[in-house]
Amino acid sequence: MIIILKNNPDKEQLEGLTSWLESQGISVHPTVGASQTVLGLVGDTRRIDVDLISALDFVDSVKRVQEPFKDANRKFHPEDTVIKVGNTQVGGGTMTVMAGPCSVESEEQLLTIARAVKASGATMLRGGAFKPRSSPYSFQGMKIEGIRLLLKAKEETGLPIVSEIMDASQLPLFDNVDVLQVGARNMQNFSLLKALGQTRKPILLKRGLCATYEEWLMSAEYILAGGNPNVILCERGIRTYETYTRNTLDIACVPVLRQLTHLPIVLDPSHAAGKASLIPDMACAAIAAGADGLEIEVHHDPAHARSDGPQALVPEVFDKLMRKLTYIKDAVDRADREIR
Amino acid sequence: MIIILKNNPDKEQLEGLTSWLESQGISVHPTVGASQTVLGLVGDTRRIDVDLISALDFVDSVKRVQEPFKDANRKFHPEDTVIKVGNTQVGGGTMTVMAGPCSVESEEQLLTIARAVKASGATMLRGGAFKPRSSPYSFQGMKIEGIRLLLKAKEETGLPIVSEIMDASQLPLFDNVDVLQVGARNMQNFSLLKALGQTRKPILLKRGLCATYEEWLMSAEYILAGGNPNVILCERGIRTYETYTRNTLDIACVPVLRQLTHLPIVLDPSHAAGKASLIPDMACAAIAAGADGLEIEVHHDPAHARSDGPQALVPEVFDKLMRKLTYIKDAVDRADREIR
Amino acid sequence: MIIILKNNPDKEQLEGLTSWLESQGISVHPTVGASQTVLGLVGDTRRIDVDLISALDFVDSVKRVQEPFKDANRKFHPEDTVIKVGNTQVGGGTMTVMAGPCSVESEEQLLTIARAVKASGATMLRGGAFKPRSSPYSFQGMKIEGIRLLLKAKEETGLPIVSEIMDASQLPLFDNVDVLQVGARNMQNFSLLKALGQTRKPILLKRGLCATYEEWLMSAEYILAGGNPNVILCERGIRTYETYTRNTLDIACVPVLRQLTHLPIVLDPSHAAGKASLIPDMACAAIAAGADGLEIEVHHDPAHARSDGPQALVPEVFDKLMRKLTYIKDAVDRADREIR
Amino acid sequence: MIIILKNNPDKEQLEGLTSWLESQGISVHPTVGASQTVLGLVGDTRRIDVDLISALDFVDSVKRVQEPFKDANRKFHPEDTVIKVGNTQVGGGTMTVMAGPCSVESEEQLLTIARAVKASGATMLRGGAFKPRSSPYSFQGMKIEGIRLLLKAKEETGLPIVSEIMDASQLPLFDNVDVLQVGARNMQNFSLLKALGQTRKPILLKRGLCATYEEWLMSAEYILAGGNPNVILCERGIRTYETYTRNTLDIACVPVLRQLTHLPIVLDPSHAAGKASLIPDMACAAIAAGADGLEIEVHHDPAHARSDGPQALVPEVFDKLMRKLTYIKDAVDRADREIR
Repeated sequence: MIIILKNNPDKEQLEGLTSWLESQGISVHPTVGASQTVLGLVGDTRRIDVDLISALDFVDSVKRVQEPFKDANRKFHPEDTVIKVGNTQVGGGTMTVMAGPCSVESEEQLLTIARAVKASGATMLRGGAFKPRSSPYSFQGMKIEGIRLLLKAKEETGLPIVSEIMDASQLPLFDNVDVLQVGARNMQNFSLLKALGQTRKPILLKRGLCATYEEWLMSAEYILAGGNPNVILCERGIRTYETYTRNTLDIACVPVLRQLTHLPIVLDPSHAAGKASLIPDMACAAIAAGADGLEIEVHHDPAHARSDGPQALVPEVFDKLMRKLTYIKDAVDRADREIR
Repeated sequence: MIIILKNNPDKEQLEGLTSWLESQGISVHPTVGASQTVLGLVGDTRRIDVDLISALDFVDSVKRVQEPFKDANRKFHPEDTVIKVGNTQVGGGTMTVMAGPCSVESEEQLLTIARAVKASGATMLRGGAFKPRSSPYSFQGMKIEGIRLLLKAKEETGLPIVSEIMDASQLPLFDNVDVLQVGARNMQNFSLLKALGQTRKPILLKRGLCATYEEWLMSAEYILAGGNPNVILCERGIRTYETYTRNTLDIACVPVLRQLTHLPIVLDPSHAAGKASLIPDMACAAIAAGADGLEIEVHHDPAHARSDGPQALVPEVFDKLMRKLTYIKDAVDRADREIR
Repeated sequence: MIIILKNNPDKEQLEGLTSWLESQGISVHPTVGASQTVLGLVGDTRRIDVDLISALDFVDSVKRVQEPFKDANRKFHPEDTVIKVGNTQVGGGTMTVMAGPCSVESEEQLLTIARAVKASGATMLRGGAFKPRSSPYSFQGMKIEGIRLLLKAKEETGLPIVSEIMDASQLPLFDNVDVLQVGARNMQNFSLLKALGQTRKPILLKRGLCATYEEWLMSAEYILAGGNPNVILCERGIRTYETYTRNTLDIACVPVLRQLTHLPIVLDPSHAAGKASLIPDMACAAIAAGADGLEIEVHHDPAHARSDGPQALVPEVFDKLMRKLTYIKDAVDRADREIR
Repeated sequence: MIIILKNNPDKEQLEGLTSWLESQGISVHPTVGASQTVLGLVGDTRRIDVDLISALDFVDSVKRVQEPFKDANRKFHPEDTVIKVGNTQVGGGTMTVMAGPCSVESEEQLLTIARAVKASGATMLRGGAFKPRSSPYSFQGMKIEGIRLLLKAKEETGLPIVSEIMDASQLPLFDNVDVLQVGARNMQNFSLLKALGQTRKPILLKRGLCATYEEWLMSAEYILAGGNPNVILCERGIRTYETYTRNTLDIACVPVLRQLTHLPIVLDPSHAAGKASLIPDMACAAIAAGADGLEIEVHHDPAHARSDGPQALVPEVFDKLMRKLTYIKDAVDRADREIR
């Protein structure tokens, strides 16, 4: 950590700060210039509060040199994390595809879609039972009944299931759900994150609509610090000024997160695009960039879907996309093997 | 609501849609042009799902003409809402000032600040007991003990108190808290909003970091639709590309919300600025724009504050600001009276 | 175009508007509802000024149904545009790679890099002679001498050259430059765009830092409307709140622009990332998404580059990337051929 | 400037960098920690290129401690700049109001508005002769004839005139224009900025749609460094995700720029709001925040304005606003005098 002081700091104040920092086990290295004095701090500065020091009236600014996340940090955990989910895994060179409807609507709907996505090669079934909707007047999901139908589809198809949890009080209902999704709007619902840290469930942590990489990783850190190592990061588009697409898919997150963290990375082009016709190209981009997988909305009858119809792929399009993704994944793997 | 169709829609599909809409009590008025057909929908379209219709393959796009919020809508509730809080009120021409520390840290700290802000004319005392922090390693607040100290300060000073609630399970602890604050990160924590809708407590609903006016009002609608009419909106800066300030205070929200809604509007320049030296001018701007009040962080010793020190005003600066605000409020009131 | 009127519009005003529109060759179809009247306009509304009508005091809002760009619009020009550049072409299934240094610095530097990128399979040489720099104190490019060196490199390697023009007065210097680049900061320098519309040079039009798709296509329209059909669109990242990368590469632009326009689309991951280590994965994503090509900065000695060193690939890394891109492009082409 | 090195930098490379920096007159102060080495640089680092050093492979990052702008920097020029314009001045405690139509449309239109705004107390007349429009099909201004009419209005009313210049080649036409406006889209048109630096004309430099404070001040620096000290900064709203208003007025710019620079600051609520009904409250906010003035669009017949009608105030509303602004300005001045 580096502390940049204002011009001509009071000597006594400076000594006070220095001795307080040293009492915290930090060694302090000043650089005195003609117009600026800088303190270099060496030691474990993770618990030093940047805000606290910034507020001192003789301090100009404070800059962190090290990332504030530790359990999620690749520096302290160089190996990729691989997460077992049922008979499959996320990370470690595999291509995870979580596919299914935005909302569970009926047994027939769910089973129709589950069978279709399984036939096309999806590795998990997604489906919303509790739906966070911006309007209180919109369909809020089938709730417990939705979970029951997901479990039925899991039993029939063998696909592990992914579903969104909105509140810690719902945890008992998710006992047999394989992956618990935390939605973008709850990425900083710290009460929920803490509760999930107490479980050992795989958590699919969506990036908040305007969360930075650091904030996102700090939310993962809440879960990891609680003792649950099974966090999968999911980029689903960020909010920008561009309104033609629902959100802007930040494809750079793949190489960025690979460097910063060991956690697996999945992309959700459906929410990012908001329009079915854009999704296949974006999904191909994600796999070519090296993502560990995708979350994709599929519906056999988008015109009658009860939520997010416009962004659902029909099974035929999903099937073709899966075949194209396989070609691209093979090309990437071959390149990574052969070109050194 | 207006439905814009693609070129040459299939006649049968179009009739299907029309008869379905009519069965929902909506009358349909088509405009057929050389290159475009448009359907004008007349009736209560609030429950018609835009997504559902957009997904039809012969539909180009759907545009709402009416706002999707009803209870929060000034059109259906033309009179300004005035909310009673203890011996004071929010809205109705008054200037509410909620002042106090970011976090409650000790009895001495809280009482020192409470006395100071009361002496300067603040109308409520704010203080955080449960603190949402982006890092799990940062100070998370004094929790129940913090609430206890706030109640003590209320007893001594007579100031109503404002404090943040993070989860519905904390509701019993807030029985004697006058105003329950919902933080920006929880603006779309719909479980929490629904629970608050079941109370009759005044709720200070902060705008999410990248929430649109409509999303913000829809979150207010969750509370109002539950039966609780006491919602105060609080702008605290939105996230933009500019990083010099912590957030960008959207001053236009004052006239915009005045037109869209009847709910009172308070601005929080402290979180928006993130730097104490910028706050007074921003507070003056808010009052001149016609806001119903301010939420301002005050700390007698910012350098030792346990959170957000850099954005806290010291009591002397707060006192001068209160005097300046009074001059400006008087000028605005006089202008609104005299100039017609 | 659709005009949504306020409640109970004055009959006379409405008739005035209707007859004025009809005098412009537009037919007007009103839909009268209980709470809203809507006018559907049919005809060539491209020259009707939205602002003008919005300002009428009985008008609530005006919505365009058709895009305001015509020459750039795929609806009126369904075939992909293919642009000949020297012995190569942009669009039409090829993979264009414009590679080279950010700035031309010396003959030796430029020739070293030009030979390297040619050997790796680049199809054009890029290099800046006139440099738009945010600081007046930064290196502003070698100017005319830079152009001379680019022409020399073109002569030796046979690669067509791409270089940025900053002002119409520089046009004579660019006589033998194959592709004229318009930088992001000049995307709405309409004086420059109009001048380029008078030439027949291929123009590489970069997206502005916060330009919407529509604004970008309207800037292309300025060039096309002047009579120059040779416009290549180049996405180089947009500005968002995320500061870890220099800009946010908007990968969705590829499928979006494919639908909206017939012009070729090139992506520049170098400026988007700002960090060399992120570029290869982003370049792979662009090709997998279906882009017509890439613009990539390459420097044999980034540490001594006079501008943008951190985002330049060294030739060895560029060479490996080109091989990987070929694998991915082959996979994409094969999928597009085989999967129907 | 501070250079943060990667772990275990090569000793020889480090010595190479150190001696090169010392040869540039910079003294280098290393801080060696267990996991990080930091170099503190002391001296005039304004010409050291951050990019160049960042690109060294043993460097992690580089952070500037001092602002890169010098002529615009309050640190080196503590007194407020006051700019004489005709018989009035900008800055120094006055309240400048530049009012008039978006576009000059006819002699009658311009004179009607000029007389009205003068009567209400405006200190300058604004009017566009050359109009930057996003569509090539929109009205592009009356050009030379527009300038002629502005000069006529100036002669009749005595009001100095403000008009936008789009290209250096237009400079001769602006000989008798008092203030030359640089539009938001041209804020980084460096060719134009350099040409304006060679004049001694007052320049009204609008902030780019997504320009940071630093970029904006660097653009001012281009003009100042050329020898022209007469730069007025004008905030006109930045682009954010919120689309209800045309742009988001960044009110915090007033206190921020007061600290960073000595140049006068004017706000343009018309472009920021895009809707006439929002403008008065935003104008009041600007003056309360301490701005040196306002630029406001006024039109006697907005429904027939040829550009930006929806954001023009009618003279009656402008007149009331001017009276309210006077009340607020008086209150602010009185507070600044009396409260210490």
